[in-house]
Amino acid sequence: MSAPQRFSGVLTPVITPFNEDLSPDSAKFIQQCRWMLSQNVGLSIFGTNSEANSLTVEEKLDLLDCLIDAGIDPLKLMPGTGCCALGDSVRMTAHAVKRGCGGVLMLPPFYYKGVSDEGLYRNFAEIIERVGSTDLRVYLYHIPPVAQVGLSHDLIERLVKAYPETVVGVKDSSGDWDNTEGMIKRGWDDFRVLAGSETFLLQNMRAGGAGCISATANVNPAAINTLYENWEAADADDQQAALDEIREVFQAFPMIPALKAASAHYSGVSSWATVRPPLVELTAAQSAELIANLKNRAFDMPGLAEAASA
Amino acid sequence: MSAPQRFSGVLTPVITPFNEDLSPDSAKFIQQCRWMLSQNVGLSIFGTNSEANSLTVEEKLDLLDCLIDAGIDPLKLMPGTGCCALGDSVRMTAHAVKRGCGGVLMLPPFYYKGVSDEGLYRNFAEIIERVGSTDLRVYLYHIPPVAQVGLSHDLIERLVKAYPETVVGVKDSSGDWDNTEGMIKRGWDDFRVLAGSETFLLQNMRAGGAGCISATANVNPAAINTLYENWEAADADDQQAALDEIREVFQAFPMIPALKAASAHYSGVSSWATVRPPLVELTAAQSAELIANLKNRAFDMPGLAEAASA
Repeated sequence: MSAPQRFSGVLTPVITPFNEDLSPDSAKFIQQCRWMLSQNVGLSIFGTNSEANSLTVEEKLDLLDCLIDAGIDPLKLMPGTGCCALGDSVRMTAHAVKRGCGGVLMLPPFYYKGVSDEGLYRNFAEIIERVGSTDLRVYLYHIPPVAQVGLSHDLIERLVKAYPETVVGVKDSSGDWDNTEGMIKRGWDDFRVLAGSETFLLQNMRAGGAGCISATANVNPAAINTLYENWEAADADDQQAALDEIREVFQAFPMIPALKAASAHYSGVSSWATVRPPLVELTAAQSAELIANLKNRAFDMPGLAEAASA
Repeated sequence: MSAPQRFSGVLTPVITPFNEDLSPDSAKFIQQCRWMLSQNVGLSIFGTNSEANSLTVEEKLDLLDCLIDAGIDPLKLMPGTGCCALGDSVRMTAHAVKRGCGGVLMLPPFYYKGVSDEGLYRNFAEIIERVGSTDLRVYLYHIPPVAQVGLSHDLIERLVKAYPETVVGVKDSSGDWDNTEGMIKRGWDDFRVLAGSETFLLQNMRAGGAGCISATANVNPAAINTLYENWEAADADDQQAALDEIREVFQAFPMIPALKAASAHYSGVSSWATVRPPLVELTAAQSAELIANLKNRAFDMPGLAEAASA
């Protein structure tokens, strides 16, 4: 097993399919991950848009094992492993390393608010020390609009200096470009700054960033990856505008139910629309409006239906 | 095993003692719970101030078992069982019912923000249906300053109407008296409205509420319970003012580390000061200031040192 290279490119928080009884549908999950890889998109499974925090640790470990046992390359995997409880974060992270994952995406503990950088540092340091592996690659996950607990540049710098071969990147879902750019400007050695959506992909590449991890890469993977591969092309701004237009269609609805409604429609597998509480699926009228808006923009998800019946 | 009566009175989110390696210290936890009961304070274990969301499900189940196996009356227990993941909430709640707990305090899933009442209803209903026991008594936990996800009066009413023998109360930690009073005024049959701290104890009792669940009942239990027992006494307002004064001393510091620092000092057991990340213990200077401020107010924790060496 070779030591993981640092990630760059486009990854997606893979949406998690559920059965009617709300249990995870591992067969469909494997199909979806294979389709993502066929579109050159990496697998940031167990992210926010994966409904990962509505899954138990056991469910996530099982899904991770299913993927790798099915032949998915673990080096393409960046599972979310940051939990509220230290023991859960250690367990998830250690298992990901044991299975050879290319990296992990780590949320801070997000229940207690107004916590100090010192407390957050101790959390991450304790996880890293307890996992204790030179194969661990941590990407910190900054998403203050949801987690409410954010990661300051000073905290990240302290972690990078203490663990330079382990803390190797960040996903910035702040939606604040100045924050993303500020991290790049810090100039941490070979540190991978991944934008939290394709909205900032072109800006990020031009500033020296490493790519993006985006919810909408679940539905629009090829076009997003094309811009990543060709960000220096003459039509890059036009490509970015086209990506933005599709993302806006989804953003007019609650994002996760909308991603799943589109996946249900374009795969022909209606159960894709199922979400776990506290989320609620789109109404029939919302789904119809979403699909109509997508069709008006000549949107398609080529290969998805074939992948779903493979 | 008799069906649980509905709670009233004073309960506390019992602080959780840790060993040096941050594992829970079950022996000390049992001692602390016994001391609380000796002060006529009920055991709302695994609350916010218990650092419950920094504990794994397994750690909490083990601690619950330890208490009951040590002879603590389960009817005095109201463990927190609401987690982000449905499966964790069901597991915790079912175990509490199986062990005969008097009730459970249930947070909403708190990672996803801006969720609808419909989604939250489905979460609670699904847990109740899956646990499927007439012995289950749910107290909903409204704490928007921390969870960020709150519980509207309409949501609570829908749950009370659907499960009148199961959804029997609420802890209101909004810090907003109008919200607490508004729930009492809804007049749900025998519904127990517990204020989220003793700050609102007298107001709550005068308005028809059932008591409080308060962090500072960890350190000032007897006085808080005395006001609960004597809220109609002539000196009730003076008693409330005295409680407020002590609470303010603690609130000048981060609450959980301050509760633990005081417990360490007055029990003589220094390890009580230990907190889990992302929290940080008080500095030596902060601890000294806290204790000096308490001594200036003739504060004591009578019986704690004896309980800690029992």
